[in-house]
Amino acid sequence: MRDAGRVYLVGAGPGDPDLLTVKAVKTLARADVVVYDRLVSDEVLALTPKGAARIYVGKQPTHHPVPQHEINALLVKLAQGGRTVVRLKGGDPFIFGRGSEEAAALDLHGVAYEVVPGITSAQGCAASLRVPLTHRGLARSLRYITGHCREDTTLDLDWDGLADPETTLVVYMGMANVGQIAGELIAHGLPEDTPALAVNNGTTPRERRVSTTLALLPATARAAGFDGPVLFIIGKVAGRASSMGEREEETAHATSRA
Amino acid sequence: MRDAGRVYLVGAGPGDPDLLTVKAVKTLARADVVVYDRLVSDEVLALTPKGAARIYVGKQPTHHPVPQHEINALLVKLAQGGRTVVRLKGGDPFIFGRGSEEAAALDLHGVAYEVVPGITSAQGCAASLRVPLTHRGLARSLRYITGHCREDTTLDLDWDGLADPETTLVVYMGMANVGQIAGELIAHGLPEDTPALAVNNGTTPRERRVSTTLALLPATARAAGFDGPVLFIIGKVAGRASSMGEREEETAHATSRA
Repeated sequence: MRDAGRVYLVGAGPGDPDLLTVKAVKTLARADVVVYDRLVSDEVLALTPKGAARIYVGKQPTHHPVPQHEINALLVKLAQGGRTVVRLKGGDPFIFGRGSEEAAALDLHGVAYEVVPGITSAQGCAASLRVPLTHRGLARSLRYITGHCREDTTLDLDWDGLADPETTLVVYMGMANVGQIAGELIAHGLPEDTPALAVNNGTTPRERRVSTTLALLPATARAAGFDGPVLFIIGKVAGRASSMGEREEETAHATSRA
Repeated sequence: MRDAGRVYLVGAGPGDPDLLTVKAVKTLARADVVVYDRLVSDEVLALTPKGAARIYVGKQPTHHPVPQHEINALLVKLAQGGRTVVRLKGGDPFIFGRGSEEAAALDLHGVAYEVVPGITSAQGCAASLRVPLTHRGLARSLRYITGHCREDTTLDLDWDGLADPETTLVVYMGMANVGQIAGELIAHGLPEDTPALAVNNGTTPRERRVSTTLALLPATARAAGFDGPVLFIIGKVAGRASSMGEREEETAHATSRA
């Protein structure tokens, strides 16, 4: 009988390969097969071992992603074939991204697996932009939501609970519904001038960002013509990005003296 | 004139040194001085360079922590003296833990600084316990709050907004107020039998955890006699920890075959 394989559900972080955990790098180095999708950056993918097979399960030429149940079945099959499988997922495997569905499938089939956490896109962007996610007097709670829903439906969220001026709200995958998101938050009491940031391809060399207000977020984000994942950070802390340019100049100045 | 120093606000993660980011490890290796407090594990601290000075700013023999303004002033002074300073903070420097106040002080004094994100305790515990923080049908939002307040006050939180059965609620530093937290959540509509986990010293060799319900959380967590940081994970996803023991046996079995 062949040795049993094992699956590692590994957080690939926000894009910068230096934001992988040490454990993720060590795990990746042992992989026979790496299964990845479009949220994993090229820089991270470049760290996969030379001998390892790479299987892409993101959008296909038909523009449809591989169905989740097929990804689950693939992971089970590879592990049952004795392979050490690394399933790379953007951000953290247990925060959105359906990593828990893969874990459940592995559980069901008795496949051994481990979970390696990853820096979320929100954390990576906050550090890169130097915008805190909590701050005394500005935000005493941090909330992650997904702004994605099926194409034929509208977002059905607890807008009353979300429109809390003392919480930093991070919206993943919200670009398609940005008009509804901003409109509902304002309708439920969040001030129109609440600071808002949109970050595209955060922490990678292709990072782009705009700093605006909640009311202007839909128009500003659409006008930016972003390509790739977009994250919204909404709340008073986002206003601390306003002096970002100045601070970057300061940093550059200090570096030139060092 | 002496070269200008620089401060790195570095996330030390939940405890396991393998959960540091690659960037954190690289940054630490260049430190002249490491400033840390009680939330940084011994295992992480062991990675500081031999020649680097270590300054502890946690609880003093008087049992009072070093005041935040003194820590801010210390970081500014060390950097102005030309040192490369690593300020290690448990978890992520921009999620609770007052890292943003240190950043603001550095900004104010024109000190160059960078922020290196870290895996939160919630992410570390979720991976270690294999409890997802979001899961279709169980939790479509993730919320971090702090359960800490000054000794002479009671927690004043938006309990209505927090008592959302479709959100995973992670409570940091909630042990002292666990009775009020569970009571208010139940009073505002969260079912008494909502699954709840308490994790002590998560991801370290001293990790201890109890799996219970919201109604029983205060008594169960107090009876456990935890020492060190405690995290609560409240929500339907926490119920997925119930089969944890079985899954660990499976893992052990699979390992023995590998």
